[in-house]
Amino acid sequence: MTILNTNNNDFYKKFKYNVKDAVEALKKEFGQQFSISQSVREQHTSTTTVHKPELPDGVVFAHNKEDVQKTVQICSEHGCPIIPFGVGSSLEGHLNANFGGISIDMNNLNNIIEVHPEDSTVVVQPGVTREQLNIHLRDTGLFFPIDPGANASIGGMASTRASGTNAVRYGTMKDNIISLEVVMPDGEIIKTASRARKSSAGYDLTRLIIGSEGTLGVITEITLKLYGIPEEIGAGRCTFPTVKDATDAVIMTIQAGIPVARIELLDIAQVKAVNNYSKLNLPESPLLLLEFHGSKSSVQEQSELFSEISKDFGGDNFEWNSNVDERNRLWKARHDVYYAVKACRPDADYIATDVCVPISRLSECISETIKDLEQNDLFGPLVGHVGDGNFHVQLMIDPKKQNEVDVANGFLERLAHRAISMDGTCTGEHGVGQGKKQYLVDELGPAVDFMKLIKEEIDPKGIMNPGKIL
Amino acid sequence: MTILNTNNNDFYKKFKYNVKDAVEALKKEFGQQFSISQSVREQHTSTTTVHKPELPDGVVFAHNKEDVQKTVQICSEHGCPIIPFGVGSSLEGHLNANFGGISIDMNNLNNIIEVHPEDSTVVVQPGVTREQLNIHLRDTGLFFPIDPGANASIGGMASTRASGTNAVRYGTMKDNIISLEVVMPDGEIIKTASRARKSSAGYDLTRLIIGSEGTLGVITEITLKLYGIPEEIGAGRCTFPTVKDATDAVIMTIQAGIPVARIELLDIAQVKAVNNYSKLNLPESPLLLLEFHGSKSSVQEQSELFSEISKDFGGDNFEWNSNVDERNRLWKARHDVYYAVKACRPDADYIATDVCVPISRLSECISETIKDLEQNDLFGPLVGHVGDGNFHVQLMIDPKKQNEVDVANGFLERLAHRAISMDGTCTGEHGVGQGKKQYLVDELGPAVDFMKLIKEEIDPKGIMNPGKIL
Repeated sequence: MTILNTNNNDFYKKFKYNVKDAVEALKKEFGQQFSISQSVREQHTSTTTVHKPELPDGVVFAHNKEDVQKTVQICSEHGCPIIPFGVGSSLEGHLNANFGGISIDMNNLNNIIEVHPEDSTVVVQPGVTREQLNIHLRDTGLFFPIDPGANASIGGMASTRASGTNAVRYGTMKDNIISLEVVMPDGEIIKTASRARKSSAGYDLTRLIIGSEGTLGVITEITLKLYGIPEEIGAGRCTFPTVKDATDAVIMTIQAGIPVARIELLDIAQVKAVNNYSKLNLPESPLLLLEFHGSKSSVQEQSELFSEISKDFGGDNFEWNSNVDERNRLWKARHDVYYAVKACRPDADYIATDVCVPISRLSECISETIKDLEQNDLFGPLVGHVGDGNFHVQLMIDPKKQNEVDVANGFLERLAHRAISMDGTCTGEHGVGQGKKQYLVDELGPAVDFMKLIKEEIDPKGIMNPGKIL
Repeated sequence: MTILNTNNNDFYKKFKYNVKDAVEALKKEFGQQFSISQSVREQHTSTTTVHKPELPDGVVFAHNKEDVQKTVQICSEHGCPIIPFGVGSSLEGHLNANFGGISIDMNNLNNIIEVHPEDSTVVVQPGVTREQLNIHLRDTGLFFPIDPGANASIGGMASTRASGTNAVRYGTMKDNIISLEVVMPDGEIIKTASRARKSSAGYDLTRLIIGSEGTLGVITEITLKLYGIPEEIGAGRCTFPTVKDATDAVIMTIQAGIPVARIELLDIAQVKAVNNYSKLNLPESPLLLLEFHGSKSSVQEQSELFSEISKDFGGDNFEWNSNVDERNRLWKARHDVYYAVKACRPDADYIATDVCVPISRLSECISETIKDLEQNDLFGPLVGHVGDGNFHVQLMIDPKKQNEVDVANGFLERLAHRAISMDGTCTGEHGVGQGKKQYLVDELGPAVDFMKLIKEEIDPKGIMNPGKIL
């Protein structure tokens, strides 16, 4: 099957790689901490979506930053690709070794180094997962809000500039990382910023590394912003006659300044998939799921205001409550959409999509996209972080049917170009990875040349996660 | 007088500049739009602080992005420095032509190009000032919150990664710019991002340009986030026995999740200066000025919560009200601290300082700094964006007294190193400019080498605002 434009690696052709000598040197250096077994290598590649797994030649299990530095030094010496690995939940082929090379498994760098409750900051190693972090923080009354669904590693979330359901209120990883420690491609360890909450100290290397998908260095430490756990959390759901009604209600909600914490859209196909997988009885109509954070009275006020707005757009059955179990059940169902969709067509391959447009264009973009799906007889339930204008069509394709594959490829290209033509982006939160390199050029044109300049200057041997972004 | 370490330009020595031929070519190209008159040149340099004015050789009055591009092309061809100029309110010598060259006056690029109320975004030219923008937006119910005090240009605010009094709630320029259009040093015009509210599309060139102080390109268009004008704005003030009590109250306020919009500290010397200049009768004790944004009930709730907290820390006379005139009078006084301090010693030179530390270290940092001032008999009222850990000692120095100058230089160095030793930064919002290059190295060490790599690659002739940051 040839699906997705993953093989355009022209930019990387100039680099000459030598994996063999690096493998020998790493064996000698790391002993038991280095593995070339087939099963270990198979676990350290991209397996979540249609991107074909491409195995690394070996895996270093790093225990500390010195291991990372040593690995980078050895790989730099020999010109060997390095692919940092967290929990493997990336959706864009980031973990594939398309030029061979070494995967660095960061899971043992999982210490929460320092919690600073007075500053609402925490310093963590990259292998810490977001659930681990929030369990650790519970007694402090603080939490880390960014929630991409999967229990991803913080390092991975930084590398893809992840966001998820909470971004409409709390922003994305770029807004919530204060500082990074990074092993650069020459093996030097740098700190990108102080722990001050704001700074004008030189170029923003923190934000340059965030979202660089492992192509500029390996993150070894992350300083994050934290937030007080809200006194009250209220969740709600509301069905609408059409997707346009739902998105218009979202626009009005945001314009009214209601500080909604989450506002998620499920289209009819997605509601059906969720009902089926999570044993729910949601009405089969476009659905908004909401969450409000604040004091008791503020949550009450927010939900009442939203209720009023929703009625203006035909919203029906707005239900809300602060019951933790109810709320968790609803959001568990939301977070399980990946599995819910997969369960609909167990033999098919999953393709993630991730466009994001200005919210004024959202209903138009979604409507055209649903029409495109229907006209081409494609199955792709839709879920959206509509407060940000970001939505995912979760395409399920039978890889054995070449016709279906061809139709899907056409759909993917039209979807990206539709978003770009509406002044949006081909990727709101998953990253470019292997599959969207051409769309990045379509979107930003000559700006990509400056990205290449930066890459070549910082990583002159091209060893950091080659084949991604550029 | 030798004050501040402004003359360390080692990094820039490798570049060879040729101003003369560029001036001739610009004369030919721009006619009346180009001036070499002494008075015009004197208006296009740094005049706000102790940084010695260094005049450009000529000034281009750009009318549109094509003028900017043409100027950059001509200067690039001849290897002539270019210094973008907004309203001149920078505090770190950014507008000085320390290698000669051309100032580009951006004030005629002052169009508000597109307001998108549904998206809460606006596209502006860099010469638009923040007051102009907010007057223009008034009828839409939206506003742009970043407020550095001065009526700065949006382009200048982007270039220094400005923030100001509202940052504790709304973030800084880095958090509120969606996309930039930039004329790069080779004359190419790039767009750094789409207009989507979030994106994972490649390296974050938007944030790389923000805070780069004109050293990587000239900004010609800026897409900003907007916010709904709050239904209610309440302002308050509260005096405390000590600076430590005031900052402890701030820490508790933020930990309690009170979404305070502004929270500013004035020390006793600053209160005295403000009383004198703005004809107020504020109690002569450390003072917090606050502002709350939200619905009527939310503002009421926030101010009540703060009132409770303040009492725990000896806060006295917490007064708050939503009266617009009262509020404006209070904030006008806050914004006039620059003039209030200058009025205390009309013959002295003003030196801005700008450290920012984790908030847990703030009272310690401020206390040590005030002690340092007292021990050295220096006059420097203090004002702080304490919600962010950022404060300014506004030093007034008689440039004719070499002893005072020497003592001030020592104080400045100790202040920067004090903040750095507390995991803070030498600049929270003013930028590095001419005076903090050594402190940037002290703060971030080898990371600065990567900033230099980026600068050399993007601007190989070193023409963009040389002598700043690096």
